[in-house]
Amino acid sequence: MDLPTLHIRRVAIDTRRENVAYLHRHCEVVRAAGLQALAKVTVQANGQQIQAVLNVVDDEGIVRPGELGVSEDAFSRLAVAEGHAARIAPSEPPASLSALRRKIAGERLSREDLHAIVRDIAGARYSKIELAAFVVATNGQELERDEVLYLTEAMIAAGRRLDWQQAVRGGPVVDKHGIGGIPGNRTSMLVVPIVAAHGMLCPKTSSRAITSPAGTADTMEVLAEVELPLERLQQIVRATNGCLAWGGTAELSPADDILISVERPLAIDSPGQMVASILSKKIAAGSTHLVLDIPVGPSAKVRTMPEAQRLRKLFEFVAGSLGLQLDVMITDGSQPIGRGIGPVLEARDVMAVLHNAPDAPADLRDKALRLAGRMIEFDPDVRGGEGWRIARDILDSGRALAQLQAIIDAQGRRAEPPALGTLVHEVCAPQAGRVAAIDNLRLARIARLAGAPQVPGAGVDLLHKVGDAVAAGELLYRLHAQYPADLAFARELAQTDCGYRLEALA
Amino acid sequence: MDLPTLHIRRVAIDTRRENVAYLHRHCEVVRAAGLQALAKVTVQANGQQIQAVLNVVDDEGIVRPGELGVSEDAFSRLAVAEGHAARIAPSEPPASLSALRRKIAGERLSREDLHAIVRDIAGARYSKIELAAFVVATNGQELERDEVLYLTEAMIAAGRRLDWQQAVRGGPVVDKHGIGGIPGNRTSMLVVPIVAAHGMLCPKTSSRAITSPAGTADTMEVLAEVELPLERLQQIVRATNGCLAWGGTAELSPADDILISVERPLAIDSPGQMVASILSKKIAAGSTHLVLDIPVGPSAKVRTMPEAQRLRKLFEFVAGSLGLQLDVMITDGSQPIGRGIGPVLEARDVMAVLHNAPDAPADLRDKALRLAGRMIEFDPDVRGGEGWRIARDILDSGRALAQLQAIIDAQGRRAEPPALGTLVHEVCAPQAGRVAAIDNLRLARIARLAGAPQVPGAGVDLLHKVGDAVAAGELLYRLHAQYPADLAFARELAQTDCGYRLEALA
Repeated sequence: MDLPTLHIRRVAIDTRRENVAYLHRHCEVVRAAGLQALAKVTVQANGQQIQAVLNVVDDEGIVRPGELGVSEDAFSRLAVAEGHAARIAPSEPPASLSALRRKIAGERLSREDLHAIVRDIAGARYSKIELAAFVVATNGQELERDEVLYLTEAMIAAGRRLDWQQAVRGGPVVDKHGIGGIPGNRTSMLVVPIVAAHGMLCPKTSSRAITSPAGTADTMEVLAEVELPLERLQQIVRATNGCLAWGGTAELSPADDILISVERPLAIDSPGQMVASILSKKIAAGSTHLVLDIPVGPSAKVRTMPEAQRLRKLFEFVAGSLGLQLDVMITDGSQPIGRGIGPVLEARDVMAVLHNAPDAPADLRDKALRLAGRMIEFDPDVRGGEGWRIARDILDSGRALAQLQAIIDAQGRRAEPPALGTLVHEVCAPQAGRVAAIDNLRLARIARLAGAPQVPGAGVDLLHKVGDAVAAGELLYRLHAQYPADLAFARELAQTDCGYRLEALA
Repeated sequence: MDLPTLHIRRVAIDTRRENVAYLHRHCEVVRAAGLQALAKVTVQANGQQIQAVLNVVDDEGIVRPGELGVSEDAFSRLAVAEGHAARIAPSEPPASLSALRRKIAGERLSREDLHAIVRDIAGARYSKIELAAFVVATNGQELERDEVLYLTEAMIAAGRRLDWQQAVRGGPVVDKHGIGGIPGNRTSMLVVPIVAAHGMLCPKTSSRAITSPAGTADTMEVLAEVELPLERLQQIVRATNGCLAWGGTAELSPADDILISVERPLAIDSPGQMVASILSKKIAAGSTHLVLDIPVGPSAKVRTMPEAQRLRKLFEFVAGSLGLQLDVMITDGSQPIGRGIGPVLEARDVMAVLHNAPDAPADLRDKALRLAGRMIEFDPDVRGGEGWRIARDILDSGRALAQLQAIIDAQGRRAEPPALGTLVHEVCAPQAGRVAAIDNLRLARIARLAGAPQVPGAGVDLLHKVGDAVAAGELLYRLHAQYPADLAFARELAQTDCGYRLEALA
């Protein structure tokens, strides 16, 4: 069906990732095609093509008949000037919908099915309803391990893929990843400079926080630019052996970013989706060797050892099938790592460890050294068992600090790093006792309510960890916030249950 | 958190069912609450409260700082004047989300869980992502029969419920329902006047087409108003013993309408959801006795007899538990019923049967008499086996026609009924043969592309049915459309495969 040409008009409405097209009710196109047919439309202009939801307008101040209004994001995606000619047509349902329906009905999908689905997702041809349906239908144990492999392959194929082989000449390209869920666990910012100082290539891209108070990208952003175009990222890694960048700008595994936007509100993080998400990003980034950290604890993502072992096998199967060397470490996830929770506080802990400060959090240092040691042992010239010592020497000598400073300078140092939130509330022990447990989930929620990670200086600063003896009224942790409303929300949650369990002193 | 008061401004954008709130980027509230585009907010004004999605605006021509713009639907839902004071707050996630997550994880839900979920759905507190997650997680055989019962109960409890006991003094309130999937199957418009003429109360509310080219409400709308406030609907039933209204205005089982809006794009129609949807509407409408039509055929919703029997048992279990008398008829669903597909054409067939016209479609007449006969036998004064003859006498005598005319007048007769689409395309037999099969799904899709049901005069007019012998080039069916583009789409699909299978004449 050929519908009349329209003229692009930018409508200054920010609808985020959802493209909206605005047409006047008396626009010829609306009459000719009927509104039902136009519920979802394809907009074509300047050789670009985007999918959009149609809103019908009765106000010529917003859009006139003959014009095609587009929301901010859609306008920048089309990259044309106002007044440029555009065409719209009813969107065809994505071709892979029949495969999605078969998955919903409980069938196993083939490699071709999963490639078709992921292509449509990466091409923004799935509605939110269809995305949610895919996420739920592939949830839990619904994906066989072959399907997880196909999904991972498809997610790699749908984006760009980096290749460092010219730089490493057959040597390993290493990375580490933690599956998340432990507040304060900012080991990457220590591990990357240590491993890079050892001379290995470590092109680390990280996510921003999904449901946590800070991701590595959020914390690194306190110190440096993290939104780097792919070409600059490659230059930085060649110059400094490493980077700590946000993965979202790199067009690596774009379907993953879209699926996360649906998994997040549903708080779904099932084994198959986690494996495909993590491994697709790593392989697309060009890594050949990966150390994977699976923390286990009563308030961690993985609660029991059998569950951790099952997850490990699935990671190993998919990584092995795709030629990625994988070393899985199952670690203690019983409490937060380090002291700070929130970007500014976590960056402070990282710098204290790099400076070998006497008050640097020992647990953060220890865990980073263990992870870095295992990564260094991917080096064929390093003897098994020597990695930890090499990592410690690099850290103690200040070479890791120098390496991170070089990476920060290469990425672009923040002239004025954000400050710690000046609104403070102190949470104290109701009675004397020994700290028996700290609830990861609750501390993460409190830090998020305080404003992290949107407000980098917001968060929670822990003064005591599991095993410490505290007196009645002694400070357990401080809340930091920038806005009074945020502080009030966080304080309220901490008052219901502060997340610390104290047991009587023996 | 108390945020500043804003002033309502109507934004003339029709966002269709999704409430959108527009705030200027420099509005104090956006800053103070840290709101982001696409956040969910609660808008309060004039004692009303609605949920909306936030769009952030940079154009003071659309909305100024200090104003709260609301989309057309949201504006009419709030029912306040422009400039009225309003408050906005970030939406709390619905309380039943934890139960939804347990269902996604594969657990069985309790009565309380399902009531909480349905309350949140009916209260418009679920996002599309959450609705899709619920629909997929309760799909297929995922619901135990007890869960289907709780879901049905909860859907009844979430809306209004009619009570006709004063009118019938203990007598039956009857209804019929077809599970759908068979084009042209407009028996309700015959059954209701027959049964009403027999003196039984039949308050029939119907849906509009979901994935079909016409629902009973769409076809009745060719002749009369169908969007009736609940009070008028009750008056009409008391005056004429029956009605043929659209169920959506009656606030009966409102969660059902919301779930359908998600089931439709996913084309999900699983047994549990179907049973809960149908029985909740019937019981909320005050019916005590129901005849249920389950058509079986290779291109019907239910394809095999064992599947039909399983569905029958589930309907019987839930109806029995809720005190509804149920009589299930498993019928022939191997081809369309009647000749017309599309509102105007189907209304024509119905009127031909009521007028006892010699060319009235015999299959439509026969099926309507069988259904009406079974309903009449719910009358304690009718002997078993007598229903069909009574129904036939009422139809042949013209009393059914008179009864439908009375119902049409009571609901509000359309002064100018819509006309048949004047753009016509004829589909002819490629070779001589006998019609061996007609594909329900394909004919329905062709009729929808031609414009039905949005364009009431669009559709397909079948000239031959299964068993007819046709010559090469003889007319099989006519397409009717109003818009050239629609006709082109429908013609194209019919050219690929016209939906008729011919076999060589013996």
